[in-house]
Amino acid sequence: MEGLYNIKCTVSYDGGNYGGYQLQDNAETIQQRLENALEKIVKKHTRTYASGRTDAGVHARGQVFHFLTETPIPEDKWAFAFNALLPDDIVVLTAQYVPHSFHSRFSAVEKVYRYCLWNRRVDDVFSRHYSWHIPYALDLDAMREAASYLIGEHDFTSFCSIRSAAGSKIRNIYEITIDEEEPGKIWLTFRGNGFLYNMVRIIVGTLVNVGAKKRIPRSIRDILAEKNRDLAGKTAPAKGLFLWEVKY
Amino acid sequence: MEGLYNIKCTVSYDGGNYGGYQLQDNAETIQQRLENALEKIVKKHTRTYASGRTDAGVHARGQVFHFLTETPIPEDKWAFAFNALLPDDIVVLTAQYVPHSFHSRFSAVEKVYRYCLWNRRVDDVFSRHYSWHIPYALDLDAMREAASYLIGEHDFTSFCSIRSAAGSKIRNIYEITIDEEEPGKIWLTFRGNGFLYNMVRIIVGTLVNVGAKKRIPRSIRDILAEKNRDLAGKTAPAKGLFLWEVKY
Repeated sequence: MEGLYNIKCTVSYDGGNYGGYQLQDNAETIQQRLENALEKIVKKHTRTYASGRTDAGVHARGQVFHFLTETPIPEDKWAFAFNALLPDDIVVLTAQYVPHSFHSRFSAVEKVYRYCLWNRRVDDVFSRHYSWHIPYALDLDAMREAASYLIGEHDFTSFCSIRSAAGSKIRNIYEITIDEEEPGKIWLTFRGNGFLYNMVRIIVGTLVNVGAKKRIPRSIRDILAEKNRDLAGKTAPAKGLFLWEVKY
Repeated sequence: MEGLYNIKCTVSYDGGNYGGYQLQDNAETIQQRLENALEKIVKKHTRTYASGRTDAGVHARGQVFHFLTETPIPEDKWAFAFNALLPDDIVVLTAQYVPHSFHSRFSAVEKVYRYCLWNRRVDDVFSRHYSWHIPYALDLDAMREAASYLIGEHDFTSFCSIRSAAGSKIRNIYEITIDEEEPGKIWLTFRGNGFLYNMVRIIVGTLVNVGAKKRIPRSIRDILAEKNRDLAGKTAPAKGLFLWEVKY
């Protein structure tokens, strides 16, 4: 693989105008925009590989992708080259040369997702594309107790879209924190070794039920044990979710 | 004026899709949207009066307007009534019955504007509609010194659009603070008894010149003294500016 370089990039995007990260025939996607830009830079169609897909409407602060190329642009110029060709809702933040053993998806050891709730009677015009508006009171301590039952290695079938094609539904959640950044602006932060299709959004939908006293915190244990998606809450809206960081 | 109520409202808006606050023939405006909603609520065209106009693209966290009406809706229902009829980029936050002596513009004793700079090499996708991206280094201490020369009562002709129709150009700035909320996210906060047309944006454009070492801080004194708009910096983009609060 002499003369072939492996480039790792972090990219931030506002998912609001896209049909998700991954290439598809009938919608604009982040990957398509990245590969269009890359083709112009290296004068050759080049496949990119991300840490994982994000759904339609989901945002990223630190998605990671990599690609192999023969074009040796100076490391600090890659981001400029991409950003000059990308729309303003996709921004490449960093780029670096990495060993060929690095793979955005298979080398990842931890992912961090964050979900934002706007919990006041009226919605906030400046957060409306980046949070889920919950106009009723939430008991954050009840939500924290409920979240505690999800920590550790579990079969998350109950918190996974039935459309998931994943083989094993076992994942390990290291930590869930729930913090009020300013009055009414609540961040749920999830750290784990990986997350299934819609898993964070279904967990958020269920925790919000707990916060609203429609479920008791302990019910989360039973939902997990039953391995039945129908028992969990509804999938929270995509617009409040951010792929925050991928760790290697 | 028996049976005629004076209602004071605070309203937040994302100015990005509007030709400014004030009614005009050839653009969508905030006032038009508010009066359209109000007409549906009270079944009668009713004029509203704001604390002042904001330019095309400028945002508000706490603009204030008032109107007189014969329709006695309960105080806590006004905001809901408005919000049910407003687009999602305009939100009425509060409403209250006030004495007839209250006037949004003439009763105001202080206005607070805030301007947001995004000072990193690459722009932030989530702040891009709400800040001005400055990719080069800024000396915040030099900007603070420059700002200090603007405090107090001055003739601000040099920092006012030549299209201004204001009689007196004398205004009193009580305070200007410059704070880094997180690395690269810089807020300039202006408190004063009133601000002329484009005044905050021209001051910001000039302070950014100082931060970039294109002007020395003391030059602000000379610019003020000359009463000549051409000597100040360019008008900073509207999208970074927020009418934050109006005090009575």
